[in-house]
Amino acid sequence: MKTSEDERHKAKMIKRKAVQDAEVAKKTIEKGLLIVNTGPGKGKSTAAFGLALRMLGYGRRVGVVQFIKGAWHTGEKDAFAAFGDKVVWHTMGEGFTWETQDLKRDVAAAAAAWEKALELMADPSISLVVLDELNIALRYDYLDLDKVVEALRNRREGLHVVVTGRNARPTLIEAADLVTEMGAVKHHFSAGVKAQQGIEF
Amino acid sequence: MKTSEDERHKAKMIKRKAVQDAEVAKKTIEKGLLIVNTGPGKGKSTAAFGLALRMLGYGRRVGVVQFIKGAWHTGEKDAFAAFGDKVVWHTMGEGFTWETQDLKRDVAAAAAAWEKALELMADPSISLVVLDELNIALRYDYLDLDKVVEALRNRREGLHVVVTGRNARPTLIEAADLVTEMGAVKHHFSAGVKAQQGIEF
Repeated sequence: MKTSEDERHKAKMIKRKAVQDAEVAKKTIEKGLLIVNTGPGKGKSTAAFGLALRMLGYGRRVGVVQFIKGAWHTGEKDAFAAFGDKVVWHTMGEGFTWETQDLKRDVAAAAAAWEKALELMADPSISLVVLDELNIALRYDYLDLDKVVEALRNRREGLHVVVTGRNARPTLIEAADLVTEMGAVKHHFSAGVKAQQGIEF
Repeated sequence: MKTSEDERHKAKMIKRKAVQDAEVAKKTIEKGLLIVNTGPGKGKSTAAFGLALRMLGYGRRVGVVQFIKGAWHTGEKDAFAAFGDKVVWHTMGEGFTWETQDLKRDVAAAAAAWEKALELMADPSISLVVLDELNIALRYDYLDLDKVVEALRNRREGLHVVVTGRNARPTLIEAADLVTEMGAVKHHFSAGVKAQQGIEF
């Protein structure tokens, strides 16, 4: 590597750093975020749990409500047990709607899960609440969309909330601070690979 | 809710379950996956760490190499300490290239990180290796793309590897089993919100 190349690189990076620092300096607001992870790709719930883990790294408390999943065992639930009472976990869903095959039961389960969500959101000891697969309950009208979005908008100051699931409703996206669409560029299920321990569950 | 509505729902869900079960039955392959989380949106590293957490929930071991981040403190690193020697963590990066401003140093750091990656990938006690921000090192040609992809393709049977970072190279995408593109639908940085503890770091 020639010195001149090094020097060009350095000059370029000094400029880049100035741009970067100016960008960072413009961002001054601190607030509890409403975060939505949606889209057909993998990683919506997984990223929400990764965020919970990051929060736990600072000794802060996290609440989780699972709206749909819950009929089956997941590794993340066991892993979070390592953090004791820093994690409050409610598995309220009884599985996908094609598993229960009972609309009334699905609606009742969603309502009970939402009550738990409100409880966690009101608890001042909790910094982050994950509402896992809430988007599914909203998509199938198991819950009143306007009431849910209003409560999310009126969350207490400083509270971060992550909502996951495909097909996020536009009203929810409108209310959110951060929306990520997970797109499936390539998926191993299409190649006949089955759900595996530690990857899908 | 009328009974007839319940019955229609049930009939629909029975059909849906049959389709779903047939889909699942077609998937019979078990294999260690090469997973790539890319795109401009949030959640690439976060989802990788969520996957690591899921694996830890089954008592399986996880390895992490951070190629770029590492000049600053992150919550997830502290959180993983709760799992003791189940997590092997190497922070090799010295920050973004506009922070170091030294191309030779960046190239040397990437080469050292890749050595650690090969070590973890060869360790039979490890089920999942996270190569955090490897895409950045590949994008800037800090590492030989073909050599890296060849080593990833030749990973030992059953080993899952997750590569994160924007602008994944097409050669890597070609070799991967699962590729997710995180798209930024809406980002709080655009609204002047700064990086916050537990969310960005």
